[in-house]
Amino acid sequence: MAAAFSCSVSFPFTCSCNRSRYRGKVDIKINASSSSRLHTLDGIDGAGKGSSSLATATELSEEQIRQRIPTKKQLVDTYRQGLIIERGVGYRQTVVVRSYEVGPNKTATLESLFNLFQETALNHVWMSGLLSNGFGATHGMVRNNLIWVVSRMHVQVDHYPIWGEVLEIDTWVGASGKNGMRRDWLIRSQATGITYARATSTWVMMNDKTRRLSKMPEEVRGEISPWFIEKQAIKEDVPEKIVKLDDNATYVNSDLKPKRSDLDMNQHVNNVKYVRWMLETIPDNILESHQLSGIILEYRRECGSSNTVQSLCQPDEDEILTNGVEQSLLKNGYLGSLDSKTYGYTHLLQIKGETRNEEIVRGRTRWRKKFSTVLPYST
Amino acid sequence: MAAAFSCSVSFPFTCSCNRSRYRGKVDIKINASSSSRLHTLDGIDGAGKGSSSLATATELSEEQIRQRIPTKKQLVDTYRQGLIIERGVGYRQTVVVRSYEVGPNKTATLESLFNLFQETALNHVWMSGLLSNGFGATHGMVRNNLIWVVSRMHVQVDHYPIWGEVLEIDTWVGASGKNGMRRDWLIRSQATGITYARATSTWVMMNDKTRRLSKMPEEVRGEISPWFIEKQAIKEDVPEKIVKLDDNATYVNSDLKPKRSDLDMNQHVNNVKYVRWMLETIPDNILESHQLSGIILEYRRECGSSNTVQSLCQPDEDEILTNGVEQSLLKNGYLGSLDSKTYGYTHLLQIKGETRNEEIVRGRTRWRKKFSTVLPYST
Repeated sequence: MAAAFSCSVSFPFTCSCNRSRYRGKVDIKINASSSSRLHTLDGIDGAGKGSSSLATATELSEEQIRQRIPTKKQLVDTYRQGLIIERGVGYRQTVVVRSYEVGPNKTATLESLFNLFQETALNHVWMSGLLSNGFGATHGMVRNNLIWVVSRMHVQVDHYPIWGEVLEIDTWVGASGKNGMRRDWLIRSQATGITYARATSTWVMMNDKTRRLSKMPEEVRGEISPWFIEKQAIKEDVPEKIVKLDDNATYVNSDLKPKRSDLDMNQHVNNVKYVRWMLETIPDNILESHQLSGIILEYRRECGSSNTVQSLCQPDEDEILTNGVEQSLLKNGYLGSLDSKTYGYTHLLQIKGETRNEEIVRGRTRWRKKFSTVLPYST
Repeated sequence: MAAAFSCSVSFPFTCSCNRSRYRGKVDIKINASSSSRLHTLDGIDGAGKGSSSLATATELSEEQIRQRIPTKKQLVDTYRQGLIIERGVGYRQTVVVRSYEVGPNKTATLESLFNLFQETALNHVWMSGLLSNGFGATHGMVRNNLIWVVSRMHVQVDHYPIWGEVLEIDTWVGASGKNGMRRDWLIRSQATGITYARATSTWVMMNDKTRRLSKMPEEVRGEISPWFIEKQAIKEDVPEKIVKLDDNATYVNSDLKPKRSDLDMNQHVNNVKYVRWMLETIPDNILESHQLSGIILEYRRECGSSNTVQSLCQPDEDEILTNGVEQSLLKNGYLGSLDSKTYGYTHLLQIKGETRNEEIVRGRTRWRKKFSTVLPYST
């Protein structure tokens, strides 16, 4: 039998929660072995509030009136600018890149892309008529006290959208093993159809009460499997293995302490913060001259607000060598031929423990030079 | 003649910038007297890149193709779900509260409201046909090297929108003195028309090169004054005076250091971070049981990435007394009668200097108890 440990559970996306949770940090039990590589979509907690009566209620609650979550499948949502595609099972949403979603050079930040992935995924479930009161949990999941937890995320960015640009984001789901679900995304330029980014993620179910992984109940399989398709945004025959860094890593950012504003409504650190902590260890000169072309996150454990986090980062060995070569080429004006080169980094976020450290996320990032080559219309 | 000082200039909203800026922190001169109460909308820097040729260019740049900024006034924008109202001079945008814009209890965060204010303001200029390549600057402003700087922001929140709720945000502009502009906003529930929040702000122009305040050139007045109306979202006959706190303030949060992720694309702290720093000094027990009903920000100076910031916070004197009374009432079960009571706090963000401290923002916040009374549909 696996040992249980006490751990403050966070969740990977900014989500809602129930009020009692918000009023104080709670400790919950997680099974150490089964929770490995998992990250709780804890906001789904709210799903436990019993809104499965939505369909049968004759009198709507205030929240129901204000949210108007569909109880039947919708093909179009004009407010969300969403529509069902892929012969009835995929979802497409048109979005405009907002002024506060962009970073340097008016391009959307990685954090904004993660936010849009979350938003379109939830709107997909919203349109399906399956959404209960929680964040992405179906009615069947709520009846079984189940929540979604993400175990892995892989994002590839070919081109960063710019402020004011109109995008089409497609998302769909598929089977992942017997009890998991894959969710994929494609981001395209609405004007040209050029693909800007693609992403794939893996999700499993966790019992909200026991905090243990759960098989997918037949009731839930019945709800969601009709939406599964085979199509994959990123082909991954053998997912890249991410080595675990140790204290000898080249870059170490210690004493990262969640601030109140880093916490979500459950007073837990959210996954965008994880990405930030990872990227903050990348050396300034790389961040200034390069842009992220790919990121893989393996979620292993949550991080509470009282934890002290350490972010480790290690450039690939060949990159160090090449970097040295490049420096000398730069000095001599021969950089051009290396413009297309990418740099790889391995990441680890861990909680500093008294006796041992606890992994939160393992990550890999890949970076390419910022130049006009990132612009899809350049000739 | 006023003394000039060297100061790293930031801007109040997350904006874009030109590439050279991003590559390093720059020091620029600001006239100490004229820049007081100002905050640079520095992203508008990019406006200086000469896109005023947009209207006449026969060949569009890649950015122009991707952004498609209108060169003539538009009455409707289907992508932004925006339309021109108020007899041709106001702007209304329909938005859905996104999953990542909400905090506790599924309600939109103050930060999200600030973001939506920024977004709708810029989309208003976008629709006007006046927008140049910068963030909100008109063609005439770009020709005169002028950028917008915000000097004051006042936001009142009666009800916080919840996840999935459809909102209508109206924004319009008016004159403010001889050389300033007022911009107001109203946020309403689309379903019921109930007003959730209102805001007003004051803007002036600054020369992008000299960093000095500028009169409004006739050319620019000609562009924007036809859009001015008298209507006010918040009537303020005499704007509340905000006293300057000193080191005797009750709550002091020192050594706030901008992190890379707190910085905008210009590597300067953005104004949402200011709001966060201000709110982080509010005691936990107030934050957990109360919600912000109003905030006033007076922008006085920017904060650079190398600065160390101190956030001071002082509860109103009568609040302290009342809080003591309330604690005893709470213990005795007599709280009900005080539910409608609000709490006021005065704030100051300052840069810790070696010889003296420099004010960044003075602020006032007002808080009311979280209860069902915050729900507009409750009877």
